[in-house]
Amino acid sequence: MTSTAFDFTPLLPAGLPAPAAKWTGLAKFSFVGGNNDPDQVPVNGLIAAVDAALRREGRGLATYNLAHGPQGYHPLREFLTAKLKRDAAITCNADDIMIVSGSLQALDLVNQTLLARGDTVIVEQETYQGSLNRLTRLGVNVVGIPLDGDGMRMDALATALSDLKARGIRPKYIYTIPTVQNPTGSIMPEVRRAELLRLSEAYGVPIFEDDCYADLIWDGKRPPAIHAMATNSGVIHIGSFSKSIAPALRVGFVVAPWEIMSRMLALKTDAGSGALEQMVLAEFCAPHFATHVPELTRALRKKLDTLMEALNEQFGTAAEFESPKGGIFLWVKLPDNVDTLKLYQAALASGVSINPGPEWSTNSSHSRSRLRLCFASPSHAQIREGIAVLADVCRREFGVPVRIANVEKARG
Amino acid sequence: MTSTAFDFTPLLPAGLPAPAAKWTGLAKFSFVGGNNDPDQVPVNGLIAAVDAALRREGRGLATYNLAHGPQGYHPLREFLTAKLKRDAAITCNADDIMIVSGSLQALDLVNQTLLARGDTVIVEQETYQGSLNRLTRLGVNVVGIPLDGDGMRMDALATALSDLKARGIRPKYIYTIPTVQNPTGSIMPEVRRAELLRLSEAYGVPIFEDDCYADLIWDGKRPPAIHAMATNSGVIHIGSFSKSIAPALRVGFVVAPWEIMSRMLALKTDAGSGALEQMVLAEFCAPHFATHVPELTRALRKKLDTLMEALNEQFGTAAEFESPKGGIFLWVKLPDNVDTLKLYQAALASGVSINPGPEWSTNSSHSRSRLRLCFASPSHAQIREGIAVLADVCRREFGVPVRIANVEKARG
Repeated sequence: MTSTAFDFTPLLPAGLPAPAAKWTGLAKFSFVGGNNDPDQVPVNGLIAAVDAALRREGRGLATYNLAHGPQGYHPLREFLTAKLKRDAAITCNADDIMIVSGSLQALDLVNQTLLARGDTVIVEQETYQGSLNRLTRLGVNVVGIPLDGDGMRMDALATALSDLKARGIRPKYIYTIPTVQNPTGSIMPEVRRAELLRLSEAYGVPIFEDDCYADLIWDGKRPPAIHAMATNSGVIHIGSFSKSIAPALRVGFVVAPWEIMSRMLALKTDAGSGALEQMVLAEFCAPHFATHVPELTRALRKKLDTLMEALNEQFGTAAEFESPKGGIFLWVKLPDNVDTLKLYQAALASGVSINPGPEWSTNSSHSRSRLRLCFASPSHAQIREGIAVLADVCRREFGVPVRIANVEKARG
Repeated sequence: MTSTAFDFTPLLPAGLPAPAAKWTGLAKFSFVGGNNDPDQVPVNGLIAAVDAALRREGRGLATYNLAHGPQGYHPLREFLTAKLKRDAAITCNADDIMIVSGSLQALDLVNQTLLARGDTVIVEQETYQGSLNRLTRLGVNVVGIPLDGDGMRMDALATALSDLKARGIRPKYIYTIPTVQNPTGSIMPEVRRAELLRLSEAYGVPIFEDDCYADLIWDGKRPPAIHAMATNSGVIHIGSFSKSIAPALRVGFVVAPWEIMSRMLALKTDAGSGALEQMVLAEFCAPHFATHVPELTRALRKKLDTLMEALNEQFGTAAEFESPKGGIFLWVKLPDNVDTLKLYQAALASGVSINPGPEWSTNSSHSRSRLRLCFASPSHAQIREGIAVLADVCRREFGVPVRIANVEKARG
């Protein structure tokens, strides 16, 4: 039983991030985080899978990595080999794949393998907050390339690469989320992927392809992965089961050439990622992935429709967005006078959490009045009610949306 | 399909560890690694637990951390609160506990929270290789304190602390494995723990208590944790389910004051440790941990007996060791002319893997002819056969043991 406080303060090194706040739970209306639809977790399928896997191989849990080595459970890598071929046209074998503890560990391992303080990387101007935060913590210079409806703009990328080369800077990688871009939801067409590969080769800058939302496309149609189109080994490809099965299972993967894989393995000193989660995924996914995912995306698509309807109803023309072709998030533009960092604070006080644009962008003026809304986790009713509360807060704080929707809401 | 190689070499930063070798499987006779006894994995209990947990809460997997927050699944923290009170006399509540991906992640988070390049830490002269390797990678100066049969020697620690203070150096922590020390197997008596706490307080150096083998004691009796005896908050306590349940499940925990916990949480950017593994452990352990562990330790004790018998038979007086009071490893001294780093290479070529002493020690001359043998994973027959092969290799390479055991072996 401790009685007095030991003062750790003089022992803390410089440069630590600020201490975390105590966890106080999710907001009542939570439009943040890569959470999924609870109704779409294949609970019975997972129960049957874990039962079968444990009966067959449960004794193997006595050995780290089930004795399958540091690249992870072999049947899961075999499933991925087939899945990546079928869905993304990637030709690889189990030895080219490393299972990791979520794609976040993949980000960390790729970064540790390639980056040092002061290095430069290229990212999409709007991109995943977790990737941006990691690069900031590492002291890396981040060059953001503007996007259009087809993803990263190749004219802007060519200019940036040329400018950097003129300054003697060779970026360490080009990070892209080409297939359901986070947060904009675009899918980069095949022709643009080819152009990206051409620039990568011309400038000797590898591509870091983050395909972790790529399973969630409404019509199931997607271009080949950039990795699949490459004529050299300069593409590192990562993915995840967080979006297709369940985020609380921490299982992702990396496809990389051995030159990089062997470096990442040397840095992965965690004695393996969780074996039970790998076993249940392999057992469930091999027979059921191809039927599970379309059921999931149908449900997500309905939630997106509810969200877009609610935004139209509550914000009218004050909320601008493109209907994404897949995913779990919507990128929304509000009127220029709205500062979404301030909106975030005010909305949270009213029980609504949102992702303010500047946290998902390298361009704070472009993203100032934009926000990301995640729609997979809240119920249809929560989506409608939460967006109504958000509109009320936004109107109170910024005078928009002007239109008062209370009359219509009372009828609904 | 990649056709030509992209040359990553110019992009790799300085200071990367050497690339990993391809995984080629475990040795035929494997006496390394914290692997456990496959016969003692409570497979049926785990199946029932995961079934019950998923039926009740499987939908929750749609939300990161099951919405229990970054410190982990609440029922598992509640179990640990009761277990730590009962077994280690630690008084804490669920908010003082963070679930991590194995105690290795705990090592990383504590190190990231407290250490910078050039810092100094104090460790036991013989200690866990994974801890030593981490400190080396971080560029930290490691001061090793000699051990005796009761663990870290307090006279030597007092001298080291005094010497460091005279040189203006305040170590960042004293790392100890007090309860079934790795690799020596000793248990630090309560009176010595009190002396360690006195020195910690006098010099303002926190204690980092690694209790991850503490469940595996033959008679089930152990002193209170150092954390439990402290009169201030200067002890960080970590533990694991790897040894008590199964290492391929990657679940460990940290008990720390909020000042340190809040820093570690800010550094734990993995979106949570695997939820399914936390669920199955909470569900299984709450009713079954107290009966499972004695069954496990009885089986481990029998394997230790087999190992000690095999060593006596094959090495005779050439192998010196103390019978440990618990654990999964035996620390063995061979004659002074044996270099266990060379023995390791020769034995591996004959299908036997061992841990050479210098990899588990800060004192390479003291540990030169010592080795660690892990006994939980191999079968009784493998233990006997593997030790016979090891003796043959050692005799061939170093001329010891002199005694030829072939005659007796042929009879067995």
